[in-house]
Amino acid sequence: MPPDATATKARLLDAAVAEFARYGVAGARVDRIAESAQANKRLIYLHFGNKERLFQIVVERALAELADAVPFDADDLPGYAGALFDHFVGHPHLLRLAAWKQLEAPEATAAEVEAYRPKVEALTRAQHGGRVAAGVHPVDLLALIVGMVGAWFGASPALWTLAGGDPRSPERLARHRAAVVTAVRALTRTRIDLGELLSPEQQ
Amino acid sequence: MPPDATATKARLLDAAVAEFARYGVAGARVDRIAESAQANKRLIYLHFGNKERLFQIVVERALAELADAVPFDADDLPGYAGALFDHFVGHPHLLRLAAWKQLEAPEATAAEVEAYRPKVEALTRAQHGGRVAAGVHPVDLLALIVGMVGAWFGASPALWTLAGGDPRSPERLARHRAAVVTAVRALTRTRIDLGELLSPEQQ
Repeated sequence: MPPDATATKARLLDAAVAEFARYGVAGARVDRIAESAQANKRLIYLHFGNKERLFQIVVERALAELADAVPFDADDLPGYAGALFDHFVGHPHLLRLAAWKQLEAPEATAAEVEAYRPKVEALTRAQHGGRVAAGVHPVDLLALIVGMVGAWFGASPALWTLAGGDPRSPERLARHRAAVVTAVRALTRTRIDLGELLSPEQQ
Repeated sequence: MPPDATATKARLLDAAVAEFARYGVAGARVDRIAESAQANKRLIYLHFGNKERLFQIVVERALAELADAVPFDADDLPGYAGALFDHFVGHPHLLRLAAWKQLEAPEATAAEVEAYRPKVEALTRAQHGGRVAAGVHPVDLLALIVGMVGAWFGASPALWTLAGGDPRSPERLARHRAAVVTAVRALTRTRIDLGELLSPEQQ
């Protein structure tokens, strides 16, 4: 590979993230990606294949970065949910990429399945060990946690309006983050946690 | 209006729902909508304005139908969440329309704000009356409930794969529905509910 090929590939991938996050798969234009990366369009086909393949590469890279930035912790699911929320706040393109993927290219790749498998296994162990409430199957639990973390970003803008002010202001986000952590704790705490919560003087 | 204009408008709206759910706003083609409705394209512009306006009309109609089909009940939020889940199962185009709207036309219309306002007000009253846990602001609570109800449909297909089998089989949907109801109950139950849950012989 020529010395500057790595830098060109990196520029093309960054441009592709921005293009796909804004326009989705069908709406994305390879011409715009090349222009934004100041590279020849042919290099996209050479390095990444067609537009659909480039989208998959962008999604898999985003998932890998997310896994590095927010390690899954089955023993502290409220903390994990809060950290994931913070990551989405800092990387708004991630949720847009995920939403486009669901609409336009919903097939699960092997890499995606392998990214989720250890999380489900860790949840199963935490439930068997009595550290997480066992009433909900690990797959459903994980879907609900991710759904709760993304809820504010996917909520109707009508709800943002009713909340008053800027839905992405630090104060509003902190308030919703606390709600997410509360909700995940409520869903995952065990009967023992509940007993401690309801000590005699509180009942 | 000529006698058959109402029927033509209804056919055009049904065709528009299918077209927008499949392709989104940018991807939708007015030609295809007209062809599918066996109507002249000019009638779309005449009755509904441009494509973007037609999309808003489709969304507002879907919201109104949803409100009729699933009345909001602040005093039975787990039941409301279950009924909303069932409605989404039976009307998969609704979640696709909502997802396209969030990506392509996220501004809240006045009709949407007025559809959510009574729900927020009812939640506020239920919290003040001690019938719903008051730890989370009504707007955040509603966003979380809607997020939980939609979680399975928006979950990564990798999670569906790990669940095994068809993610939309009646058995799988029933299992996830129960998880949603459990999660909403956990989030909204009051300290009194918790006390009853933890009666002495259960602790």
